[in-house]
Amino acid sequence: MNVLIVLAHPERKSFNGGLVDEAVEQLVGEGHTVEVDDLYAEQFDPVERPEQYPHSAVASDYFYPLNEQRAHYEKNTLPQDVQRELARLEWADLVIFQFPLWWHAQPAILKGWFDRVLVYGGRYTSRMRYDRGYYRGRKAMLSVTTGSPEKAFQPFGRAGNMVHWLWPIHASLYYVGFDVLAPQVGYGIQGGGIRYQEEADIIGHLEACKAAWVARLRNLDSELPIPFTGWDDWDDDGILRQTNPLRWRLG
Amino acid sequence: MNVLIVLAHPERKSFNGGLVDEAVEQLVGEGHTVEVDDLYAEQFDPVERPEQYPHSAVASDYFYPLNEQRAHYEKNTLPQDVQRELARLEWADLVIFQFPLWWHAQPAILKGWFDRVLVYGGRYTSRMRYDRGYYRGRKAMLSVTTGSPEKAFQPFGRAGNMVHWLWPIHASLYYVGFDVLAPQVGYGIQGGGIRYQEEADIIGHLEACKAAWVARLRNLDSELPIPFTGWDDWDDDGILRQTNPLRWRLG
Repeated sequence: MNVLIVLAHPERKSFNGGLVDEAVEQLVGEGHTVEVDDLYAEQFDPVERPEQYPHSAVASDYFYPLNEQRAHYEKNTLPQDVQRELARLEWADLVIFQFPLWWHAQPAILKGWFDRVLVYGGRYTSRMRYDRGYYRGRKAMLSVTTGSPEKAFQPFGRAGNMVHWLWPIHASLYYVGFDVLAPQVGYGIQGGGIRYQEEADIIGHLEACKAAWVARLRNLDSELPIPFTGWDDWDDDGILRQTNPLRWRLG
Repeated sequence: MNVLIVLAHPERKSFNGGLVDEAVEQLVGEGHTVEVDDLYAEQFDPVERPEQYPHSAVASDYFYPLNEQRAHYEKNTLPQDVQRELARLEWADLVIFQFPLWWHAQPAILKGWFDRVLVYGGRYTSRMRYDRGYYRGRKAMLSVTTGSPEKAFQPFGRAGNMVHWLWPIHASLYYVGFDVLAPQVGYGIQGGGIRYQEEADIIGHLEACKAAWVARLRNLDSELPIPFTGWDDWDDDGILRQTNPLRWRLG
């Protein structure tokens, strides 16, 4: 497999950075090809705005991001950094996103990667979405660290439910067609701020996180993706069909 | 009331911008004081990184955002833009966030506002969170537009459940103590990209969205916030107490 690891952490020496190093070592050792896409090192600009398109492709004094994305995609004049990211995605069979959970979501630099890179017209349209999405047949997964300990993430626990926090990102990856693998979560990493393989008092915890990650990477090929509903489940209004058994099983 | 409206849309003439204008007119007309905080106009930089702190406050070659935030907060040397945003929040009794839903979340410029402005040490600590949060007694609400129509947002519908998309943001506002009012959602606004009061074929829909917004603004004072669990509900591990009735009612 070609594996792209998108890293979103401002400190390369962080535990998040260390997990990337572990993934590279493990995956290369198994014969996969790996590329690391360090958004901070590349100074990726996450803000979708008119200045990203100095030569507007739509004749208008009104900036509508989706129109601009589609027009530049069709003319092959998308911003250089977006073209670079799209080329990496084109190459990848599996994309791993490595980031600390900040405010119950990905850091802004990675949020804006979605806003800018997954361009309308090129990577999705009203017909090319979900299980008819551009990246169908390819895999994606999130590898996340948290500050709060695992116990606090139990249902109705203080820190909330991890499935809920990651749902907007998982749904976005599915929206463009990816098969989404279950996330890898390292809890209690102090917001992803721990220097990798230091801090002796928690070394056991970090080693356990690392071991779980490495063990999982060994068998990624055989994992089944998270199930989502798809076009066959919805009527023309996008509503779950009356006859769909999910209506009765999940309420 | 002092009302701060945080706008995150790259086009001031958008429907999102128009909803801000409506809110200003309505709220000022009722005697409130309103300030608009246009993150795009102010070119807010949403990326939390070492360059935000040219004079590091922690003696380390290792960048850990929370340590840097706390140290600069204590020395009163936070970045200028962060200080400006904190002063605005200090002034506000109600904060309205106006934005289009991009990839099931807020645009990156607003995500990074959370990452950078709600500083560790100053606006939250392990003890100053949730219903003991800094902003307790103040209100916040989201005013959001979507591309997909309302029908598609029904449970298990194509576009997903709006409560789920907004949950990470609502939980973040509650984390720092805000009373969170129910969100205002304008569906089917083509990704928030419609020029306000144009596009004759959907003018009726836009007028209905606007009318609903104005009507709601008239009675915001009397609205009850969304209920959250709090410190009294959790044990020392942050887990919902065995005796809490939510365990049985919500499962």
